[in-house]
Amino acid sequence: MKIAVAQLNFHIGNFDGNVKKMLKAVATAKKQGADIVCFSELATCGYPPRDFLEFDDFIRLADEAIQTLAKAAKGIAIVVGSPSKNPVIEGKDLYNSVYFLAKGKVQHVQHKALLPTYDIFDEYRYFEPASEFKIVKYKGKRIALTVCEDIWNIGNDNPMYDICPMDELMPQKPDFMINVSASPFNYNHANNRIHVLKSNVERYKVPIFYINHAGAQTEIVFDGGSLIMSPNGNVFEELPYFKESVKTFSLAEVKKGKTSKVQPKNKMKLIHDAVILGVKDYFGKLGFKKAILGLSGGIDSALTAVLATKALGKNNVRVVLMPSQFSSDHSIKDAEDLAKNLGIQYDIVPIKSVYKSYLKQLNPLFGDLPFNVTEENIQARIRGMILMAMSNKFGNIVLNTSNKSEAAVGYGTLYGDMCGGLSVIGDLYKTEVFELCRWINRRKEIIPNNTIVKPPSAELRPNQKDSDSLPDYDILDEILFQYIEKTQGPNEIIEMGFDPKLVRRVLRLVNINEFKRYQTAPVIRISSKAFGMGRRMPIVGKYLS
Amino acid sequence: MKIAVAQLNFHIGNFDGNVKKMLKAVATAKKQGADIVCFSELATCGYPPRDFLEFDDFIRLADEAIQTLAKAAKGIAIVVGSPSKNPVIEGKDLYNSVYFLAKGKVQHVQHKALLPTYDIFDEYRYFEPASEFKIVKYKGKRIALTVCEDIWNIGNDNPMYDICPMDELMPQKPDFMINVSASPFNYNHANNRIHVLKSNVERYKVPIFYINHAGAQTEIVFDGGSLIMSPNGNVFEELPYFKESVKTFSLAEVKKGKTSKVQPKNKMKLIHDAVILGVKDYFGKLGFKKAILGLSGGIDSALTAVLATKALGKNNVRVVLMPSQFSSDHSIKDAEDLAKNLGIQYDIVPIKSVYKSYLKQLNPLFGDLPFNVTEENIQARIRGMILMAMSNKFGNIVLNTSNKSEAAVGYGTLYGDMCGGLSVIGDLYKTEVFELCRWINRRKEIIPNNTIVKPPSAELRPNQKDSDSLPDYDILDEILFQYIEKTQGPNEIIEMGFDPKLVRRVLRLVNINEFKRYQTAPVIRISSKAFGMGRRMPIVGKYLS
Repeated sequence: MKIAVAQLNFHIGNFDGNVKKMLKAVATAKKQGADIVCFSELATCGYPPRDFLEFDDFIRLADEAIQTLAKAAKGIAIVVGSPSKNPVIEGKDLYNSVYFLAKGKVQHVQHKALLPTYDIFDEYRYFEPASEFKIVKYKGKRIALTVCEDIWNIGNDNPMYDICPMDELMPQKPDFMINVSASPFNYNHANNRIHVLKSNVERYKVPIFYINHAGAQTEIVFDGGSLIMSPNGNVFEELPYFKESVKTFSLAEVKKGKTSKVQPKNKMKLIHDAVILGVKDYFGKLGFKKAILGLSGGIDSALTAVLATKALGKNNVRVVLMPSQFSSDHSIKDAEDLAKNLGIQYDIVPIKSVYKSYLKQLNPLFGDLPFNVTEENIQARIRGMILMAMSNKFGNIVLNTSNKSEAAVGYGTLYGDMCGGLSVIGDLYKTEVFELCRWINRRKEIIPNNTIVKPPSAELRPNQKDSDSLPDYDILDEILFQYIEKTQGPNEIIEMGFDPKLVRRVLRLVNINEFKRYQTAPVIRISSKAFGMGRRMPIVGKYLS
Repeated sequence: MKIAVAQLNFHIGNFDGNVKKMLKAVATAKKQGADIVCFSELATCGYPPRDFLEFDDFIRLADEAIQTLAKAAKGIAIVVGSPSKNPVIEGKDLYNSVYFLAKGKVQHVQHKALLPTYDIFDEYRYFEPASEFKIVKYKGKRIALTVCEDIWNIGNDNPMYDICPMDELMPQKPDFMINVSASPFNYNHANNRIHVLKSNVERYKVPIFYINHAGAQTEIVFDGGSLIMSPNGNVFEELPYFKESVKTFSLAEVKKGKTSKVQPKNKMKLIHDAVILGVKDYFGKLGFKKAILGLSGGIDSALTAVLATKALGKNNVRVVLMPSQFSSDHSIKDAEDLAKNLGIQYDIVPIKSVYKSYLKQLNPLFGDLPFNVTEENIQARIRGMILMAMSNKFGNIVLNTSNKSEAAVGYGTLYGDMCGGLSVIGDLYKTEVFELCRWINRRKEIIPNNTIVKPPSAELRPNQKDSDSLPDYDILDEILFQYIEKTQGPNEIIEMGFDPKLVRRVLRLVNINEFKRYQTAPVIRISSKAFGMGRRMPIVGKYLS
């Protein structure tokens, strides 16, 4: 028996596009001699469809997609994820299901039992968990079908569920497992995935075919990396990261096992590729082509410009230099150098005259009150507004250039430098921004070295430095990581040896700035805990604030 | 036996404040002769604590609060909601529990079984459902304790769960039920609540004491309205809406039943009071006092100013009139009249000179390109920026003035009129804005009549009217209501008799403007489906778009 694994890039709600893509892959799999071709979780409607699932009309379209695919399941079987209706009135209205289509018809439907409802996941919001588990028989083989999380309650210290669907299926003696997934990327995820799959094959002693989605949906990147694993725990093959792939495997060969190399998992390369896919799919799936961003001469906008150019092409990225009286000469030069290195269009729009007109207009109200954060923010907001005006006039989408450290502590201006349709590097701490810039420059100076080595500054008042208001990024980022990614409280972090006053100040800054993050663009997620849909915090709270 | 129902206004994460408030109510209840005093769901930490629940430190503080309350449970028993740890490794780490405290100790803990995970609710994100159900015995009575949703699987057409906790508890023959809740307001909720409680007492034939939270947490308003219901299905008493109350009832009297009047449920009055509490608690709980908003002379900002003034007091609301060359004379006069009626401070800051300085600065890029939405947005953004500058300089929080109709179809400028820390009327359709203004003016003209009767206009170009770009609000709002509140698809809405082209256009506008709503302020929720945390939509989708 031959099984084709098709990791494709689906688009939420784009049923026609998704079906067309799958039909093409069915043809490819047939050519490769496959008996079965497998697609990822909720492939018909794209993952995560979120509250679209609450529309009967949306489910009807998913059902139609299944019917179309079923008709194409002739001479080959199709395994595909799609929502299905719960026929009984009690419980949620839907299941998250995997369909087995063959001989032109739906042969079997297995529902997902373990419904991730944490971080970015909301599955129990929509789905009833499965209570029945049945294998499917095809061409003399017995196949255990599961959906994503169903195999993830094994091999971890803190199991989130009290059953394992494969335990229920094993008495039916399956010959192999197929798991259809939509498992989001983070820079540790590929290793975790291999660990979990290994734990499964070691426990159940049958091979697994694991099919992941490859593509980004707004903030969530799915990295592909589909796995075929032999019963001996060896990776038989790992499909490429961040791109589509259709490949057919012989079950007999997979059962035998072989020693296969998995792809290298360099953190910076993974982040780099993930962000580029995130930008590419945000634009591609929304039907946009061109981006615009402000280039300050600083490292954040430099990195954003590089990644955007790699994602969209140099003819589709435009940058604007918006110097004020507080901008240093080297900033303008550094920004120009980068634009030239990248070959992208750049314009210079000084903001001094607009700034002055604001001050004049506000003078009757402000009188002699001293310069403070108000005037700093005015500058940042003028820049945001110029970018938005150019966006409106020329149709370029504004890219946000904030990093995770500043988003965390609120070191940014709402409606100013925090504006934009997509946050490109908003899940990278400042120290990771530096690291990625160095990695990008590893062979050739693309980002001017001066941009990397000079002390970070917002340049909103004379001789301003980030270090005037913030601790060293090495220390700040470690505290933030412990609080945000590791959910450690103040006492635990202080016990690690950090200054108690500093820890309390940083945690307070994170919490009192929730209102700012609430209003910012979706952030491309590359860590296990990004700001946005995966981190849901009260605004009106009084905890550590 | 006497039972005190204490509906209080808690604050998320403010353990000290919440405990202090409860201890005071314990003393009041004792004075009233109560044997038991009952508080609402998750009263120790406030509801909804959201991802704060993932911090061990946060749970430790909740446990400490329970210990403090237990010590005070002498001569009186305390029923109080708080998170509790799941002692086994499988499943979620926490339960959403109700504690029974007496004789200085924790006597009993009952966990919540039905975990709402829909709309604004995320409970399965954090909590394991209860699998054991035990009544508690106290002073010769047998008491069934449940938490909020536990009693809501009864009396509705589409039950979301396959068990009813009270069915499990009834064999233990309870004398009465106590349900601790944090059940959010919408303008139909009070009636639904009475219906559900009635269904419960009719099924179980014992009285119920239902304790709700009364207070707002950012966007969610809890309306109180705690209920004491007799076994015959009569409301024995309904506690007041939108305010705290501690009141003691004799079980014997409640068992007998009486005919009692419930409070009137006038939609406009309910919305009016809910929004005012929402604004008041947003400011009060964040420690702010003063608000600022732009007053255009139009109806949305007028209504926002009235509600803000009622919530915060006339000395704490400041408005800014920001006329441009496109502003009509009547707009300025209407705005001034309103400010005078309300007795609030107003300033006039014309935007023409700043607008011109932008155009001049952008001219080298824009050249002879015609006036379009770019220039309209520049005006809206200048106004947003002036408000933000005044906010920064004087410490007033900017209130957003968008209504639900324009937020739905994207008829607003991101970082312009869509700015602000809190959206006051963002869950009111334009037709409801009109209705509420008329209701406010029912005895006296507070909002200038001209503001209500003139055709709505953004006044961003000569002679602009909303009706140039949008259908009549009567029609638009009905289509939006069917799509947003009722999750009807295009075919269903067209079948109701609306123009097919118009329906498709409106639904498309809603979906392609998701990116704008993603970046706007939290919206005080008054309907069953508000924009924000209760409506989670993909940005990069291709459904009806």
